[in-house]
Amino acid sequence: MKHQSLIFTNLVASTLDKTIKELSPNGIFVLVDENTEKYVLPRIKSESVAIATAPVIKIKAGDTNKNIEALAHVWKQLGDSGATRSSLLVNIGGGMVTDLGAFAASTFKRGIRFINIPTTLLAAVDASVGGKTGINFNGLKNEVGTFCEADTVIISTSFFNTLPAEELKSGYAEMLKHALLTSADEFNALTTTDITLLQEDELLDLLRRSVEVKRRIVVEDPHEHGLRRALNLGHTAGHAFETMAMERKKPIPHGYAVAYGLIVSLVLSHMKYRFPTEPLYRLAGYVLDNYGAFAITCDDYPRLLQLMGHDKKNECAGRVNFTLLKEIGTVECGVTVPEDDITAALDIYRDLMHL
Amino acid sequence: MKHQSLIFTNLVASTLDKTIKELSPNGIFVLVDENTEKYVLPRIKSESVAIATAPVIKIKAGDTNKNIEALAHVWKQLGDSGATRSSLLVNIGGGMVTDLGAFAASTFKRGIRFINIPTTLLAAVDASVGGKTGINFNGLKNEVGTFCEADTVIISTSFFNTLPAEELKSGYAEMLKHALLTSADEFNALTTTDITLLQEDELLDLLRRSVEVKRRIVVEDPHEHGLRRALNLGHTAGHAFETMAMERKKPIPHGYAVAYGLIVSLVLSHMKYRFPTEPLYRLAGYVLDNYGAFAITCDDYPRLLQLMGHDKKNECAGRVNFTLLKEIGTVECGVTVPEDDITAALDIYRDLMHL
Repeated sequence: MKHQSLIFTNLVASTLDKTIKELSPNGIFVLVDENTEKYVLPRIKSESVAIATAPVIKIKAGDTNKNIEALAHVWKQLGDSGATRSSLLVNIGGGMVTDLGAFAASTFKRGIRFINIPTTLLAAVDASVGGKTGINFNGLKNEVGTFCEADTVIISTSFFNTLPAEELKSGYAEMLKHALLTSADEFNALTTTDITLLQEDELLDLLRRSVEVKRRIVVEDPHEHGLRRALNLGHTAGHAFETMAMERKKPIPHGYAVAYGLIVSLVLSHMKYRFPTEPLYRLAGYVLDNYGAFAITCDDYPRLLQLMGHDKKNECAGRVNFTLLKEIGTVECGVTVPEDDITAALDIYRDLMHL
Repeated sequence: MKHQSLIFTNLVASTLDKTIKELSPNGIFVLVDENTEKYVLPRIKSESVAIATAPVIKIKAGDTNKNIEALAHVWKQLGDSGATRSSLLVNIGGGMVTDLGAFAASTFKRGIRFINIPTTLLAAVDASVGGKTGINFNGLKNEVGTFCEADTVIISTSFFNTLPAEELKSGYAEMLKHALLTSADEFNALTTTDITLLQEDELLDLLRRSVEVKRRIVVEDPHEHGLRRALNLGHTAGHAFETMAMERKKPIPHGYAVAYGLIVSLVLSHMKYRFPTEPLYRLAGYVLDNYGAFAITCDDYPRLLQLMGHDKKNECAGRVNFTLLKEIGTVECGVTVPEDDITAALDIYRDLMHL
């Protein structure tokens, strides 16, 4: 995988201009969705020389539009606007825009360069390193995609002040995950902080530390053959919750699904490895206070188990693998968990969530 | 780019079984088109243990079906049949099947392993090394795709006896190209041979030498930043001829287009670098005798120039770059040629083709 520069700054436009100058593309194209076109693009465009007159490609906002039609639209717009193999795509948006834009760039003419500017906390903390690109397909999240890092990712907290609290919390759940993979100190710091009250620069600092956790893991295992599965913590159950919410036509933010999934992971970690109850209860309390509960009943278990079996990180269809913790910072990847244990964990999740 | 094994053999089924055993996938899926389902699959299936009961995914034959719909079909079939990230796709077919199947495999769940078994001479000589995957899109050939090599390519001449002479000649044109990139001896050997009269094992030997030319170039420049453009010899004009033939609803085989494109390249090479006339006339004679002529008039020039400008190997839209030869084996890549010279070369092409 090529080397990706990661720049943390709140001076986005000048950093973008400098970066583009170094890459010296022969054409620049900008991808936005309806939201970033309205709330972010005007500001960057007014301050940036490089993208002031660049053609803008727009896609519809929302994870349900992270699909093959939008992908084909980006490919077509790039081609029709005269993009060549030496062109550059600048993806400005949340994870949906950066994932889809990166997939489009990594496959258009077999790969052109791209810059990601994540505009949500979730995209900054989760999608900015690791090079996972993709779209939803056949009813499954990120069913197709590539591993391809951006040339440069420009991470700024200056976009977040217009975001709803829900968006901030969604990203914060991934930061909680990174803290659980690192140390009790980080975890305690995060669970005693109210994300919605942080200043821009305080958050940029927390974010830099959190992204660094992921970067370290990804560098060691870019194609997710081993260690990188650590980042799957909370995601086996989380993805199932997220898909179920979509099926109920009441989608929940990805980070919320991860927050609920983290609880299931820690319950299983306790059952399997005696993971201590204090951080488990602390997490459950924090999640319940800040995220509310994702409501499930026993009747949902069969579908949830089925959805967990479809997670692409499972090597064998039908066998459900989890990433678990022995304690905070000590990870066990690819743990096979029998269905009965998952069912028991879902019971405890419901208890903890007062369901 | 990962390391790809290249196996030349006429014992395909046993080689396939051995290879699959080494890869030990958790699921095996086979991709064919209507032709290989009928003429090739039964034979391999009857002799192979590994793929005897593997699910078979079928796509329509022909380059016009190398499209996003067929790609989506393969993705969907893989997902619906329970393929996981540890599964294996075996692509059995011509370049259309191997290009599309490889693209599907390199993106399904962000990449699963695949084996290519090219069943045409063209696919064996052109598509078997280099890792170029892709589909046609937006009216352009291979407009989207990835660079991703197969785990293993099994090359055999044992499938060719059922191929029409046209298919053999199509592949042979790429061998002519490789010879022009190598030595006068190779070129003279090929232009005094009748491909349709060769024995299986004689052809396998010629093929091995020809594929080796490409392999050497690709190893030095996997992502086509420099030297690999040598392989573009004949393709700037060739792709334009090929697209024009499609637009006329009278498609010509890729290799035929390359054969005509090689003539244009050598004419331009003579104009620019005094490339000797003897091999130019020899090639033109050989092509006219064996491939006939692709008929064009002056009225076709504007469209041909436009199509050449859209070739994805051109860095700047509107400027037409060619790969040319100073002499046989001495390549100049990325040569900018003014439109007047191209027009003059097309005039000479028509003379040489007696048009």
